[in-house]
Amino acid sequence: MLKHSRLVQGLLVWFLATGVAMAANWQALPDKAPEPADNPTTAEKVELGQMLYFDPRFSQTGTVSCNSCHNLMLGGDDNRNFSMGVHGKTGGRSAPTVWNAAFASSQFWNGRAASLEEQAKGPVVNPVEMGMSDLEKAMSRVRAIPGYKPYFERAFGGKDPVTVDNAAKAVAAFERTLITPNSPYDRFVKGDKTALTAQQQRGMQAFADTGCTSCHSGPAFNGPAMPAGTGFFMKFPTFTDNSYVKKYDFMKDKGRFESTGNKVDMYLFKVPTLRNVSLTAPYFHNGSVATLGEAIRVMAKLQLNADLDDTKVADIEAFLNALTGEFPEQKLPRLPATPGWSLLSGN
Amino acid sequence: MLKHSRLVQGLLVWFLATGVAMAANWQALPDKAPEPADNPTTAEKVELGQMLYFDPRFSQTGTVSCNSCHNLMLGGDDNRNFSMGVHGKTGGRSAPTVWNAAFASSQFWNGRAASLEEQAKGPVVNPVEMGMSDLEKAMSRVRAIPGYKPYFERAFGGKDPVTVDNAAKAVAAFERTLITPNSPYDRFVKGDKTALTAQQQRGMQAFADTGCTSCHSGPAFNGPAMPAGTGFFMKFPTFTDNSYVKKYDFMKDKGRFESTGNKVDMYLFKVPTLRNVSLTAPYFHNGSVATLGEAIRVMAKLQLNADLDDTKVADIEAFLNALTGEFPEQKLPRLPATPGWSLLSGN
Repeated sequence: MLKHSRLVQGLLVWFLATGVAMAANWQALPDKAPEPADNPTTAEKVELGQMLYFDPRFSQTGTVSCNSCHNLMLGGDDNRNFSMGVHGKTGGRSAPTVWNAAFASSQFWNGRAASLEEQAKGPVVNPVEMGMSDLEKAMSRVRAIPGYKPYFERAFGGKDPVTVDNAAKAVAAFERTLITPNSPYDRFVKGDKTALTAQQQRGMQAFADTGCTSCHSGPAFNGPAMPAGTGFFMKFPTFTDNSYVKKYDFMKDKGRFESTGNKVDMYLFKVPTLRNVSLTAPYFHNGSVATLGEAIRVMAKLQLNADLDDTKVADIEAFLNALTGEFPEQKLPRLPATPGWSLLSGN
Repeated sequence: MLKHSRLVQGLLVWFLATGVAMAANWQALPDKAPEPADNPTTAEKVELGQMLYFDPRFSQTGTVSCNSCHNLMLGGDDNRNFSMGVHGKTGGRSAPTVWNAAFASSQFWNGRAASLEEQAKGPVVNPVEMGMSDLEKAMSRVRAIPGYKPYFERAFGGKDPVTVDNAAKAVAAFERTLITPNSPYDRFVKGDKTALTAQQQRGMQAFADTGCTSCHSGPAFNGPAMPAGTGFFMKFPTFTDNSYVKKYDFMKDKGRFESTGNKVDMYLFKVPTLRNVSLTAPYFHNGSVATLGEAIRVMAKLQLNADLDDTKVADIEAFLNALTGEFPEQKLPRLPATPGWSLLSGN
């Protein structure tokens, strides 16, 4: 499957480099995210998942929750270049948005998690994110809060439902509700021709003509659906003979290669969604570009060797603004109390 | 006024030291918090205030909001001994709960803010909390987010409503909605004699008989209402010839003296509310005591020179559990986007 994804990647780079723009196939965002067979979404899992998502007590310091870096009150990220985890530590990549992550074939910038369930376990034990020594330690914190047990029981049943896997399933089920349909773009492609302004429609055409849709295709603008366990990766940067590469330090992070050590993975990154992209500054895996306009310019140059003029950039930016959808209303969760327990030790 | 509060404090220490227990005057929590004449609570202010309260972008790193340390999903605090602010820095006192803070005569452990409006400005510029260099710098962040302006206009009107004072007023108005009436205790004192268990009723009696009500009186169990600009302070610890003082390092923090340098303020602390106290472990200004049972034991010894037996402690703890009220349902706010702006620089 890895081989397959590399083939797709190679073909696309060739297409792009030779200037063959693909015909755009505009798709609206579904109203419901796909669900894996072994974790159907239920109201009980979603409720528990939301609580776990917002609970900072499963980080080493008790200060960092999923929502700290993937803030649902904002664009599903933190508007920082590098996220800040426990003890003020920072990592080396910018937090991707959690909104519509359910539509990605794999998770993380390098696609190292095949599912939302698998992804949910990562940051908990990342030393610069939530910093727990291991997942069982995190679960012992969950178990120390008696109020969580009934929620696990209702969501999963069984004899001892308070497990790492069930916690990850609940968080993933919650994240599958974090989708933003009905953007102006969606209404437009569903037939409401007044949903986009004239400039946005010009931008839509320019987005396709420039070749952006070669990678940013599909309902989430993150490429075609790939077989489970793989993802849609592209080389970034592809064209390196320009000033942006140095200015934004784009040769430093070697993408998938950093974790696989495999030469064919050099500079491969997952193609990120463009849904709600106007809310997620700063841009790129290293958060080096502050504005969406500059990000458009940089992408066109680095991936398509195109120099866009100001009008084209403004038009495409207007179009990308039309990808901001409707955010589902949520209740602020109440988290169960921590009687007789504190986070005093070791932080 | 300061003189007045010192007099009250002095008298009470004398009452306690001589073993004169005051008759308990049980009061329910009002359904509405008092409002200052110059900042009446309106729906528009509350809405804006909630947004500002949850927005981390007005901290230096963009990671710390009011809610980080005064978490409304929990007991209105962070369950830590010392709160963790920007860059993982920690202060020297435990975050007090924001729930029912509207019923306090002054704010902060040392009462240095006379109102919620004044308090709201403190943490923003505290170097170990939100870490902004000054309040105007924070407001320039608010102004850089165009989506906030209409909310300020609706809440305050006027020509240039996006000001520090209005932001503080909005946060304070929101905080006046953060009250938790209708606890089992409240229902009991309003006449529902089934609202407290037999053990809780014994605990209630023991709480009064031991002398706890001498300080923890009134509807919020934080002492009598004091003239605006002052507060109800008590010496802590009062009785120092016991092992708790050393064990929990209670001679280190000299309370109001730390900021005033005035000898009469030595070891004076504001009497904190006991509402929802079972949710706010760890306890005391230095968060040194992990459980509520131990906190009861320690307080009785240090303030009343009483050695409580296990039954009394358990009864009083059961009673304090009955002070957990109903938390108002809240919507998770959506925060306005930060177009063309990022938190890249300087963090």
